[in-house]
Amino acid sequence: MKVYLDNNHKTMTDPQVLEVATPFWTEHYSSHDAVYQHAKDARVAYSQALEKIYASIHAPKESQIAITSGADESNTRLLNSIYLNKILTGQKNHIIISQRESRAMMEVIEQISAQGTHISILPIDSNGIVDVELLKSTITPKTALVSVSMVDRESGAVMPIDEMISICRDNGVPIHTDATQAMGKAHMDVQMLDVDYLTLSAEVIHGIPGTGVLYIKDTNDLPNLIQTTNNIAGVVALGKALEQAIDAEAFEMEDARELRDELEEAIREIDGHQILVPWTYRAPHTIMVGFDGIAGDMLLWELGKAGIYGYTEDGRELVDAMEIEPKYRHTLVGFALSRYTTKEEIDYTIAKLKEAVEKIRTDIKGESK
Amino acid sequence: MKVYLDNNHKTMTDPQVLEVATPFWTEHYSSHDAVYQHAKDARVAYSQALEKIYASIHAPKESQIAITSGADESNTRLLNSIYLNKILTGQKNHIIISQRESRAMMEVIEQISAQGTHISILPIDSNGIVDVELLKSTITPKTALVSVSMVDRESGAVMPIDEMISICRDNGVPIHTDATQAMGKAHMDVQMLDVDYLTLSAEVIHGIPGTGVLYIKDTNDLPNLIQTTNNIAGVVALGKALEQAIDAEAFEMEDARELRDELEEAIREIDGHQILVPWTYRAPHTIMVGFDGIAGDMLLWELGKAGIYGYTEDGRELVDAMEIEPKYRHTLVGFALSRYTTKEEIDYTIAKLKEAVEKIRTDIKGESK
Repeated sequence: MKVYLDNNHKTMTDPQVLEVATPFWTEHYSSHDAVYQHAKDARVAYSQALEKIYASIHAPKESQIAITSGADESNTRLLNSIYLNKILTGQKNHIIISQRESRAMMEVIEQISAQGTHISILPIDSNGIVDVELLKSTITPKTALVSVSMVDRESGAVMPIDEMISICRDNGVPIHTDATQAMGKAHMDVQMLDVDYLTLSAEVIHGIPGTGVLYIKDTNDLPNLIQTTNNIAGVVALGKALEQAIDAEAFEMEDARELRDELEEAIREIDGHQILVPWTYRAPHTIMVGFDGIAGDMLLWELGKAGIYGYTEDGRELVDAMEIEPKYRHTLVGFALSRYTTKEEIDYTIAKLKEAVEKIRTDIKGESK
Repeated sequence: MKVYLDNNHKTMTDPQVLEVATPFWTEHYSSHDAVYQHAKDARVAYSQALEKIYASIHAPKESQIAITSGADESNTRLLNSIYLNKILTGQKNHIIISQRESRAMMEVIEQISAQGTHISILPIDSNGIVDVELLKSTITPKTALVSVSMVDRESGAVMPIDEMISICRDNGVPIHTDATQAMGKAHMDVQMLDVDYLTLSAEVIHGIPGTGVLYIKDTNDLPNLIQTTNNIAGVVALGKALEQAIDAEAFEMEDARELRDELEEAIREIDGHQILVPWTYRAPHTIMVGFDGIAGDMLLWELGKAGIYGYTEDGRELVDAMEIEPKYRHTLVGFALSRYTTKEEIDYTIAKLKEAVEKIRTDIKGESK
């Protein structure tokens, strides 16, 4: 049996997504902006796909959606644009970003910090979420942007984004959220949220990796942020993937949660474990856990032999950040389900996980004798 | 009959390219950097594809290849990195770029020009190529980068890149060339060229649009330019497309040229025309021409009705730049062949082109009576 539980990093491309994209590689491959008739199919498909993308996050018509190559490009292009248009011009001098943002973002942050921009990094608390009170006290009249992901890619912690947006609103500070991990697992409405910038990516919603979205509420502030794309197949695939993500919302929020909870209950029966992020603060499809004395890599390797694929920490020290007992350092493994996950797969995973933990602990005891 | 002659803008995806990519969407979709066994196929395919990409341009092992989402990202990421690392740090203050670079690049140039960077735009001459002597006199000790495309996307003019590189070498100035339009139509060897940065894109070599390359001779100078990509299918497809482009080099340089020349001879028989760029300065698969009194859009529309798809000017005033008679303004149309172009298609195009020019001229005469 093969059980893929690394869906926060990459997902299987849905066959239907591939099917709608293929004609735009092999037949209607012209630029959609070409004047000739041949481009008409591409043009129609492109605008229909864009409509689906707008609809998927309830983006108003007057807002802008930039098609990017994925979350990293959406996020870094926004940071660079804020830097060029707001900071270099002397209007602002400060960016607030959560400790848990991606490596690509942190690299840009380092660069612009080296150029003299003031950066505040918001830490997470023992529940894995950003402290809202701390945000309040960190904002200054010179803050150009606050950027916090909606859901932590590893721990699955759901950030208090509503409150953070409202604080930013009160202080007149633009706020960006990377919603890559939340899309399809929570209802997404940029108007209800009233967020300024929002990022999405195809690669974790069963799309074709290589496209993403940067939603921009008002482009007046940041010119040159929108570029046109020639990647018609990619945009068509993204539209379909987002449509499917919306259709599968109920499944992800209820059925996937039930399966995840089944796995979670079984984990709670294993001695010496530490589950990250309380149930109530966590996205429905994710669980991250450490088992006392068992290196995460070793456990993942053992599970991999049984065809079960989870993930380990990306080297960013969740244990320290969340003030968990130091003995759980390097033990963390994560499991992220998707709408393709079945009960059979979870039952199998539970059995194999228990076996693996027991086997490794017995092996270690044997070695230490 | 359908005759697609817009291959400098986008190309049909080769069925074999699609075939090698598909399993990495539907089966081996894990991140290639995941620790578990499931990622092994992705990892092996990724590194094999990277080897093909290095081999396609004879990149030495110690050089770096960044996978991007296409030429625009390669080019703008380089410009931004030069700006951050060389100009903002005060080491340099000047960029030289040709008049014929892409809109995406020119937007970045405008931004960094607005921030105080000195920009020199190299014009093209009546042959459509950049003046080498002018480059010499424009370089200063504070020049951070020279950027000139290898082949003009519209006119097909082949720039004197060897001489330009040698001038840059003599002056210790880094040089970048966007080789997107040259790849597969000329032998590409970054070591022989001795270029510092080079751009490629999948979308004009029958690949899957959405990936590109930025070759970097020495990364010491520009840290943070390399990002890893998760888009395994894209990288695999790019490797295959580049391999095929090399295999088809002889065809593109000889057979496509013969077909283009056949079209060119037929065009020369039509009264009142202006072919852009002398034959010797032009890439083998391209011809751009204006017919006296005929708007380019109108001709393209007429040809489109017969199933023939060329291109018009991208609004960047080649006629003025190349000092062509003003009556040819807005008349330009281009035809770019590919390895899929057949003799039947070109014969058909010649017949329909003659008909269309005659028909439009007769219609115009009729109207003006």
